[in-house]
Amino acid sequence: MTSPNLPAGFRDLSPKVFAERKHITTTLEKIFVRHGFSPLETPAVEHLSTLLGKYGSEGDRLIFKILNSGDFLASVEVPKGEGASRAFTREISKRGLRFDLTVPMGGYVARNRHKLQFPFKRYQIDRVWRADRPQKGRYREFYQGDIDIVGSSSCYHEATLLVIAAEVFNALGIDGVRLHLNDRRILQTLNTQMQMGASEVFFYQTLDKIDHIGQEAAFELLAKHGYQPKALDKLGTLITSCDNSAQKLNTLHRYYEEENLSTKPLESIAKILAYVRSFSEKAYQSIKIDLQLARGMDYYTGAIFEMKLPESSLGSFGGGGRYDHLMEVFDQPSLPSTGISFGIDRIHDYLKTMGRLPSDTQGKLLVLLAPMESAIEHDAIQYLKQLHAANIAAELYPAGKRMKHILSYAHKKNIPWVVIIGNEEIANNQITMKNMETGMQKKCNFAELMALLKESAFTTQPL
Amino acid sequence: MTSPNLPAGFRDLSPKVFAERKHITTTLEKIFVRHGFSPLETPAVEHLSTLLGKYGSEGDRLIFKILNSGDFLASVEVPKGEGASRAFTREISKRGLRFDLTVPMGGYVARNRHKLQFPFKRYQIDRVWRADRPQKGRYREFYQGDIDIVGSSSCYHEATLLVIAAEVFNALGIDGVRLHLNDRRILQTLNTQMQMGASEVFFYQTLDKIDHIGQEAAFELLAKHGYQPKALDKLGTLITSCDNSAQKLNTLHRYYEEENLSTKPLESIAKILAYVRSFSEKAYQSIKIDLQLARGMDYYTGAIFEMKLPESSLGSFGGGGRYDHLMEVFDQPSLPSTGISFGIDRIHDYLKTMGRLPSDTQGKLLVLLAPMESAIEHDAIQYLKQLHAANIAAELYPAGKRMKHILSYAHKKNIPWVVIIGNEEIANNQITMKNMETGMQKKCNFAELMALLKESAFTTQPL
Repeated sequence: MTSPNLPAGFRDLSPKVFAERKHITTTLEKIFVRHGFSPLETPAVEHLSTLLGKYGSEGDRLIFKILNSGDFLASVEVPKGEGASRAFTREISKRGLRFDLTVPMGGYVARNRHKLQFPFKRYQIDRVWRADRPQKGRYREFYQGDIDIVGSSSCYHEATLLVIAAEVFNALGIDGVRLHLNDRRILQTLNTQMQMGASEVFFYQTLDKIDHIGQEAAFELLAKHGYQPKALDKLGTLITSCDNSAQKLNTLHRYYEEENLSTKPLESIAKILAYVRSFSEKAYQSIKIDLQLARGMDYYTGAIFEMKLPESSLGSFGGGGRYDHLMEVFDQPSLPSTGISFGIDRIHDYLKTMGRLPSDTQGKLLVLLAPMESAIEHDAIQYLKQLHAANIAAELYPAGKRMKHILSYAHKKNIPWVVIIGNEEIANNQITMKNMETGMQKKCNFAELMALLKESAFTTQPL
Repeated sequence: MTSPNLPAGFRDLSPKVFAERKHITTTLEKIFVRHGFSPLETPAVEHLSTLLGKYGSEGDRLIFKILNSGDFLASVEVPKGEGASRAFTREISKRGLRFDLTVPMGGYVARNRHKLQFPFKRYQIDRVWRADRPQKGRYREFYQGDIDIVGSSSCYHEATLLVIAAEVFNALGIDGVRLHLNDRRILQTLNTQMQMGASEVFFYQTLDKIDHIGQEAAFELLAKHGYQPKALDKLGTLITSCDNSAQKLNTLHRYYEEENLSTKPLESIAKILAYVRSFSEKAYQSIKIDLQLARGMDYYTGAIFEMKLPESSLGSFGGGGRYDHLMEVFDQPSLPSTGISFGIDRIHDYLKTMGRLPSDTQGKLLVLLAPMESAIEHDAIQYLKQLHAANIAAELYPAGKRMKHILSYAHKKNIPWVVIIGNEEIANNQITMKNMETGMQKKCNFAELMALLKESAFTTQPL
């Protein structure tokens, strides 16, 4: 016998929760389409050779691997000792569940490069899977909403992504989201210029930790790895200096001039800011140049961004950036690309906590027809046909249960109208209509109910 | 380096194909909602203990199994010899990808039984995975559209499912689909009554083969397993007798009376037919009582159905039936249930072959703004804002490419309007608008274009 439990980290979406999420994904989809993005769907399963090594060994650990089919042990030597599982895994598993939507999109572009029109702008709102330790707000199966622009190096596109982010949070009624903006090239320069000897990846990972362990502890870690106290002081000043984008950019410019560095990444940030401001002053004001933003293990090469609520323990609503070398993964020449990913579940959880999910997102079943006897069911079906023809969602409760039971069913399913049809009603060519919200109940003919429903402009829309 | 290929049996859905499929799923969703079904989403991953043994050993072979995380070899003895892979699989894999949407839905009901309102009517249009041999029209990842009614034994619900099936094919413009109807209890009776000694499952599987290998070969197979020639003759007569539902039911009644059998399943079929006929004469006429319909390995206990085109090599568009014992899988008391599953990809492939997919399903990007110089981009953004505010899908092509390139981009993306803005236009407060379909090109002010677009009632709808 089987326990009905789900594996840890996996969830059902009840009709109510499904409708809430659909409210979020439809909002995103509308904005994406308005900005000229087309939908793409890639499969859940990819070759492990495509997935592995794109996110570092930490990423590889988080990929769900699918066992090869058939008699997979027949031609395999089972290794022993430490690291055996890892080597063995490569022998018995060739495919895995996708970890994000970006690498699979890269594969699609690589497969269809000859026939795509560049810049290729696609969106995908879909599931991804990560074998992470499940905890509050972190699931093993979750939805990402991604937009990417492949095949253009214009930083107009980065600006579009930030404008879309601002539009998304505005449309969802989430105020105060800051759009953190940085550039990987600035971090590279700082790492080299300040003679901070360690690897870029170590530098990025440590910066990412500041939010969790604080700047002091993070800087101690850097010092331990050979970063000079003076350089760290300078880095600290640059990170914490003023919050205003224009001023921050000035501070950086002064530093770059003092050190005689190429100001190319600063000019690209200035351009992005100007484009966004042309679009929307509000979106521009929500941008924060954030030198401690590093976006850890990812494959970014230029601008990077993250969407966060200030002083919230929630983490980020998502992020993205420019990644110009993804095609090299597929042994193809580079295509300059930039994208952003929205964490649908994070957004959902936040809207729920704040009580800002619309309460009427559930598709309303409007009419329950209750024939009192089997012989009347066929008359009731005629009414049902008329309701459906008028695009009104309605169902029939087959005869045989008591009225109390049927009314309780309608009540719990939030059905506003119950139509009772007994022998008396049939004899008088009437129905009894009962409004479950007001309690009003009266006998009338069916046409009267139809007029009432049509007047209320009720129609069935898919959720 | 990585080949960009997908694993065999997996596909991308390009924007065009995605839009085509959305046309199909939206059609289904509207009909499901109108009939009072609510959406449910269950996860892709389930415990193997939930999935295995529900579909027989053939089914178990087709389930994609996920490797346990971490050092899974540490505490496992690796078995050797025949059947080793199977035993070992149980040790190193505890989870798998769902095979259908019914068993996971059963799990949801089992988990939430105390708070659900019965009959529980849910729909789910979602992915399932099967490690089947890929071939034309058979994929390893595909979409099913399922509706189920849990917690009622009224055969009114079977009728609803058949009516919905007729409405679906009608709405999609697929003519001539036959709704094959049978009852597992009739097959059980025939198997016992005719003293056909073999197991029910063998009997079902052999009947299912008739479509592929013909009745003669199938009956030879039955004869080999001890079925008597006389009984087989009778079975053949019952199967092939008249095509008309009412007459077929009469033939069956006569046989049941001769043999002094309980006519309960025949009465239930008669009821289903009467309900469907009350709804729709057309749906009723499309029903075919089909005694060779068995639906192989599945867990059905009463009425069974399948949706097929006559004389088509396509196979079925889906099917379903009554299954009253699914809850027992989860160690819970039975709940009488019935459901139907639509094969979205089968339907999609058919509509495509027949050229019956709407051509305008792709979300139209209406306007491409082409500023001729960087300095003009910010003016162009102001126009873009106005278009978006009017809910018109529009994008800006950043300055820097030649007009020829931009027009080719618009052409290949099917963008009907290109708006060119150069220095001359800016000086005169004008734009140049070009219609890509007619070739018409003229200078005018932006308000004129807006009026034209609004008049055409173009708006951006998510696909």
